[in-house]
Amino acid sequence: MRIAVDGMGGDNAPAEIVKGCVQAAALIKDDIYLVGKSGLLEKELKKYKFNREQIHIVHAPDVIENEDAPVRAVRTKKESSMVVGLNMVKSGEADLFISAGNTGALMAGSLFILGRIQGIDRPAIAATYPILGKGVSLLVDSGANAECKPNNLLEFATMGSIYMEKVLGIKNPKVGLVNIGAEESKGTTVLKAAYELLSKSNLNFRGNLEARNVPKGNADVIVCDGFTGNVILKLTEGLAWNILKLIKGKFTAGFIPKMGAALLAGKLKELKNEFDYSEYGGAPILGVKGAVVKMHGSSMANGVKNTILKGIPFAENNVVQIIQNSVLELEEIVISE
Amino acid sequence: MRIAVDGMGGDNAPAEIVKGCVQAAALIKDDIYLVGKSGLLEKELKKYKFNREQIHIVHAPDVIENEDAPVRAVRTKKESSMVVGLNMVKSGEADLFISAGNTGALMAGSLFILGRIQGIDRPAIAATYPILGKGVSLLVDSGANAECKPNNLLEFATMGSIYMEKVLGIKNPKVGLVNIGAEESKGTTVLKAAYELLSKSNLNFRGNLEARNVPKGNADVIVCDGFTGNVILKLTEGLAWNILKLIKGKFTAGFIPKMGAALLAGKLKELKNEFDYSEYGGAPILGVKGAVVKMHGSSMANGVKNTILKGIPFAENNVVQIIQNSVLELEEIVISE
Repeated sequence: MRIAVDGMGGDNAPAEIVKGCVQAAALIKDDIYLVGKSGLLEKELKKYKFNREQIHIVHAPDVIENEDAPVRAVRTKKESSMVVGLNMVKSGEADLFISAGNTGALMAGSLFILGRIQGIDRPAIAATYPILGKGVSLLVDSGANAECKPNNLLEFATMGSIYMEKVLGIKNPKVGLVNIGAEESKGTTVLKAAYELLSKSNLNFRGNLEARNVPKGNADVIVCDGFTGNVILKLTEGLAWNILKLIKGKFTAGFIPKMGAALLAGKLKELKNEFDYSEYGGAPILGVKGAVVKMHGSSMANGVKNTILKGIPFAENNVVQIIQNSVLELEEIVISE
Repeated sequence: MRIAVDGMGGDNAPAEIVKGCVQAAALIKDDIYLVGKSGLLEKELKKYKFNREQIHIVHAPDVIENEDAPVRAVRTKKESSMVVGLNMVKSGEADLFISAGNTGALMAGSLFILGRIQGIDRPAIAATYPILGKGVSLLVDSGANAECKPNNLLEFATMGSIYMEKVLGIKNPKVGLVNIGAEESKGTTVLKAAYELLSKSNLNFRGNLEARNVPKGNADVIVCDGFTGNVILKLTEGLAWNILKLIKGKFTAGFIPKMGAALLAGKLKELKNEFDYSEYGGAPILGVKGAVVKMHGSSMANGVKNTILKGIPFAENNVVQIIQNSVLELEEIVISE
């Protein structure tokens, strides 16, 4: 397997990206192609010992910045690490492309360069959502499509279920539709229609999912439009960060609490790890003709390493092909409405 | 001031409702009218010492249940504690009505019995949202209106700002519009139009508010449609509950952690209190011609007490009248579009 990694994307590129690639390479047999400014990447690589036959540099002189307008950037920066990496997947030179760069550009580039899977109306970004003490669920869409039609939500549910089964190994994953009440009659017109479509599908649809049950892991695949998905993901991040900060503040105020915190050091570390998104790899872009994974913009080496490790089954298990095959069935459901 | 309280609404009625009323009465000079089945209420009241001239029972033989269809319940159960309580506000026999009962019915009843403030298109439920270590923000709408137009969001912002200033004493409250990015151009068509309206208003509008910044208290008034508001409120509740459970589990696993947790007992209690919604009173219904407050369905005596205490300035400071006066100005902004 050949894994292309955007060496220039994200807040900590190229240093942490390169470090993560070296860490991953030590654990796998696959080839890694670091795409970006060769001088910078070479300089970082020199800091480590690694197998020169396993990590390769692919020179790309340009960089798409976070501030760049996505579509324009993809159209004009043909020599950027992101566009070069996506073209490697397109041409078959790579089986997987991973980037921590501009999310909009990665989505736009995946659409323009790889193209949509025929029959998928709206590709989505599927984020792994940490279920405390229990692993992860998959949140689709996590931000690519602010407004959705009922058939888009059915597509998200289908693609998410395939990913959970084939990549994260969850058999017959439970699907939940985020809504403001458990009853079928709840929510907007779009959600009511989506509920009907999901009920007719052969997915393991468990009905509406109230937001309070999202963190409990009641659904393996959390289905919602990209606006709601973004709110869920970002609110969880913000709240977890705030709570940990509050705990830290409280537990270091005074001598006795400090002693208590010292005795709990191991447990506090465990607690922090529960919120660590980087353990679960990145967010796959589902619905395009190729395996592309978005990493968090602030990814450190450990996150890069895990994204590479989790990315391998995504490419290896033909998720893209399986989605392609299941699309016809979706059309039957939508048309029969 | 005369405060009517629904003695029959909520999971813990009438026992905890009555207990909360007795606790509140000891701290205020105002009269409390407990509305509900007089036999049951009298039996509960007998458990406590209180001033018989301060707490009164208003008999209402019927009860609106949580399972009742809201509109139908309000139309048919004329003798229910909720309808009787709302009618007391309508007739001027009470200055404020508080209920932990069926939210939809309380909203519908407020609309039918008290009526909308002229010029307010959509009344909203404004929930207090706990900002860890810093008090509360106000989330409007928290669930009454799943789908909204731009002018509704402007109304929510205006009513929320007045409530924050007059009831919670926040001068010139900061208003944030929940969106998936900070830039003006982000989000749905409705949100872009709402952004424009808010910019033209004389509110202290601080622009778009990303969900990650909601728990940090970046806005005193968090403006969103009721679907998003419900997701924010319920997800926060679910996540906080899950985190506390996780902490409890981790800190009681093993002898050394247990000792540590014992030393931190005071701090852990403080942490739990930070998440305790009941400290901040209930959720006012804004935009109807009367002061009505919804309490959490699972409210215990302490929550009832605090809702009564926070409800007094809501009624006393003429919030309803001030909203009424500010509506004309809103119409100018919307029409000038």
